[in-house]
Formats: sequence, structure tokens, C-alpha cells
Amino acid sequence: MASWNESASKQAITDFVSRVTQTGGSNYVEPAERIAVFDNDGTLWTEHPMYVQLAFALDRVKTMAPMHREWTNKQPFQAVLDGDMAALAASGERGMMELVMVTHAGMTSAEFAAIVSQWLATARHPRFKRPYIELVYQPMIELLGYLRANEFKTFIVSGGGVEFMRPWTNRVYGVPPEQVIGSSIKTRFEMRDGRPELYRLAQVNFIDDKAGKPVGINEYIGRRPIAAFGNSDGDLEMLQWTTMSGGARLGLIVHHTDAEREYAYDRNTAFGRLDKALNAATANNWAVMDMKRDWKVIFPFELG
Amino acid sequence: MASWNESASKQAITDFVSRVTQTGGSNYVEPAERIAVFDNDGTLWTEHPMYVQLAFALDRVKTMAPMHREWTNKQPFQAVLDGDMAALAASGERGMMELVMVTHAGMTSAEFAAIVSQWLATARHPRFKRPYIELVYQPMIELLGYLRANEFKTFIVSGGGVEFMRPWTNRVYGVPPEQVIGSSIKTRFEMRDGRPELYRLAQVNFIDDKAGKPVGINEYIGRRPIAAFGNSDGDLEMLQWTTMSGGARLGLIVHHTDAEREYAYDRNTAFGRLDKALNAATANNWAVMDMKRDWKVIFPFELG
Repeated sequence: MASWNESASKQAITDFVSRVTQTGGSNYVEPAERIAVFDNDGTLWTEHPMYVQLAFALDRVKTMAPMHREWTNKQPFQAVLDGDMAALAASGERGMMELVMVTHAGMTSAEFAAIVSQWLATARHPRFKRPYIELVYQPMIELLGYLRANEFKTFIVSGGGVEFMRPWTNRVYGVPPEQVIGSSIKTRFEMRDGRPELYRLAQVNFIDDKAGKPVGINEYIGRRPIAAFGNSDGDLEMLQWTTMSGGARLGLIVHHTDAEREYAYDRNTAFGRLDKALNAATANNWAVMDMKRDWKVIFPFELG
Repeated sequence: MASWNESASKQAITDFVSRVTQTGGSNYVEPAERIAVFDNDGTLWTEHPMYVQLAFALDRVKTMAPMHREWTNKQPFQAVLDGDMAALAASGERGMMELVMVTHAGMTSAEFAAIVSQWLATARHPRFKRPYIELVYQPMIELLGYLRANEFKTFIVSGGGVEFMRPWTNRVYGVPPEQVIGSSIKTRFEMRDGRPELYRLAQVNFIDDKAGKPVGINEYIGRRPIAAFGNSDGDLEMLQWTTMSGGARLGLIVHHTDAEREYAYDRNTAFGRLDKALNAATANNWAVMDMKRDWKVIFPFELG
């Protein structure tokens, strides 16, 4: 973990790993039970000025607009095409869901994966002018590797769409598709022209956020993690589920405190609000990582 | 695969494995992509005279009956308590669902896992008079090991309940909980008395059968398998999804042909009907394994 300064949060991590890996120790945990779960947005990569997947959806609306003339005077599409963020916000959760369904459904799973990969190869973050997958946190990548070197199995448990993440998480984080859990829409299997296909439907299947995270962990992993890493109130229940089960457990919150190198936000933000989980950290003995103080570098490209 | 006779089905397996593991060969597949999926009931363990999970549900009804006096004259419970299989069958899918919900919901996930483990430790198969987990197929356990020795990752993809399988699949098959996919009911996360709990609700979440199998494979694994093993029409779509994607692929059907050592059934049976998938085998070049002819032993206890 070369990009971590010596700090309480680094100490909490290494102490925990020492305890659960010490053969014969009272806190020893078998390798098979060393499950670590990571939120993605704001924990492993940048979620400001908006979730990357939202930026993807807005771009897709623009790309698809020529085939949808009716969008020029229909919300929330008009707001997207006009770049009117206030009108977009006013469309609320219902408007967001409409955007997601129009841009994420209506194709096969393989086609969607290709669309995502192509977008990630060309889209640029508005402030850093770099591909989004370069805006992952170098210290967290090192942490993932450190845990795996200590025979942990690392999972992503994200509110983001599972098929939005799987095309690139292995390459970027070393987390293979079968260890990525996220929100999803329903799919339908069909033989068409003698070929088996999975079609993405405009219907919610699972929301992997807040109380959905422990539900998803149980459903998709079937083991209770011993370490959880998050950065927002969406991770509160995952942190509770992981740490409040006796034995040596680790909960860690990534606190965005660095407006200069990345962003600074917690209780007042539209993306990655950290309020209840921050209050709960002290009582539950969760480590709170201070991005400005604890990380030598934020992004891999800083290593040159 | 010591318990396999030299046969076309064994040959199909070893040929396939040779091709996909030969470095530099035109059919070479990276270890990470070597995903093999196995049905459970009838493919890895006995599903006659009825699915083991149904036997579990019937036993649970009997165990719970003293607390439910109303069941003595209410279907489908009365049928279970009277051992009246005709009346039980007459209650149809709706009756079965009612039995499943009453016996599988209304407790935490941890409590359910304990109930399953306890039942498996005491219940006996009516014909073989042995614990159900001794009625797994020795040749298939060897096959699982053979594939893992060749860097395959083995998954179970079963119509059975995922939380009914996970307590024992690792011990019996070497398949860990996170590699078991199955049908499920919904759960709800709640903090109760300061403890986080997952409650099992009387509500269907996912049916991992027929066209649900490729859907489940995509949702839970996120990779397309290169080998699939099944024994009934419930596995047809999984076999299609796995094998009809170009490249070297293996589909294999376990055909129950041995009434003496196990059971013989295919097109006419209430549990594990094999009809459409058997018809599809020839056209798709799936291996059809003949239990009587191809297996030296069926169960591990025959090895003595």
C-alpha cells in the first residue's frame, strides 16, 4: 500500500489483516471466509460531478436523439438535450428511471456490454479530461491487491448497474465479473433465428443500495463478509451487516476531503451523501479514511 | 475420473478439456473463462422418488403441525399430514408454493441454514436409508474435481432453493456458496434489537429453471459458460446458452437408465422429466451419459 501515508486508517487495515490471518490466533479466519466487499462509486472511483453511469445515460440520450424526434419537447429528454440540469433534477426519480430504461434496455446483454466499452473508450471526465476508468483510486487498487495477497476474495457491491461495471472491473480492479454485484434490470432468454439471446427489459430487477446491499450480499455471495469499504449512506447497511456479527471485522469509510486533488463533500451533496454512516462510524468503530491526509496520490496517472 | 467406464461420454469430456486447455491451440480458453455449470437435482444427486427439497418441505410441515391445528383440515397441509400424495398433487403448483412459503419463510437466513443442516443430518432417503447427502453421484464428484484440476471454475445452477443448497455444497461437492445459483425467495434487511438480520419473506424472488437458467447465469456469474451438465428439460436453455456460442463447447446430459442401482426415467416422470432436451441432444451434439453403462459406481458409499 505504497500510496497510503502512515495513518490511523492504514493502521486499522493492516492490524485487521494481521489478526485474521494469524494461524492459531483467536481472530483467525479461514481463507475461504475472507470476503471483502467494496462499494464502487466514490469508493473505488470518482462519482463527481455526477455518477459515471449517469453521464453515460445522458450521452446515450444525445446519441440516440436523432432517432427520437419526439424527445425535443418531452421531459426528461428535453432537459438532457438542452443541458438543463435544473429541469432534469425536477423530473425526479421517475425521470431518472425513464432515462435509465431508455438507455439501458432494448438490446441484448452482449450489445449493451459493447456499448458500455465503446463509451468508456471515448468519453472524458469534464474536469480531469481523462477516460473515466483512469479516475480510479490508486490507494484502493493497492488495498484490493493487498487483501488478495492475504487470500481475501474481493467483491464489488455497488448501487450502479452490474452490466455497466462487469465489462471493465477485471482489467481495472482485478475483480472478475462473477465477483461484481450491482443493480440490475430484468432480462429475458429467447431463441431468435436459432440463436440463444438475452434481452434487456425496461423493468427493474434489483436495487443494490442501502438495505439492498446486505440482501444482495446474501443472495449473490451467500457468505457474510468480514470487511466492508464504502463512502456514503448507501453503504450504511452493508457496513452494519459486515461488522456487527462478532469476531474481528473491519469497516472503513472513504471520506472525500480533498477539493484540490479530487472533491470534498459529505453531508450536502447530490451524489454520495455521507451523513448517517458518518455518524454511525464512531459508535461502530469504523475507520474513517481522510483522502487529503491519508493518500499520497489519488489517481494512477499521478504516478507518472 | 476413476468411476467412469471408458465410454463416448467420458471421451467427449476429456477431448473437450484437452482442446480448451492446450496452450496455443485454436480452441484454447483462458482459465478465467473456463466456467462450467452443473444442474443439481438428478445431475449431482438423486431426485427420486421426489426432489430432496420437497421431502424437506413435507417433513417441515409435519414438524410444524402441532403449532398449526388448522392444518388438519386445510389443503395442501392436510394431504401432507395424511400422506395423501394424490390430494397433494391435486393442490397443484399453487399448493406447492404454499408449502414452500410456509416452510421456507418467516425466519432469518441464518436460522433457515441451521434448520436445513439439522434436517440433512437426520433425514433418510426412503429407499437407500441413508442421509441424502450420501446420495450424490461419485462419478460427478470426480468430474467436478477433474474440471477444477484443469483450472475450471465450477458452479451449480439449480432450480432448487439457493439457501437450501449453500449450507452443504462446499463440503459435499467442493462448490463454495458464492458459486451456487438457485431459486430464491425475497429477504428483507432489518436492524432488530440493535442486530442486523435478514428475514426470509413469503415472496418469490427468482425461479432458476428453464429459461431462468441462462438469465441466472448472466445475472449471478456474468460470464458465459463453456460447459454445461444437466439431466432434464429444466436444463435445456442452459445447454443452449452454453453450447450455441461458437468455439469448443461441451453439453452433457445425465440419462437415468439404471433402475437397479438408482432409477430409470426420462420422458414420463413427475421429477426430472427429460424429453425436449433429449430430442435436442443429437442436433446440438450434446453427450448423453448412460448411467447404467457408463458409471462403475453411482454413490460414494459403494466405494466402501
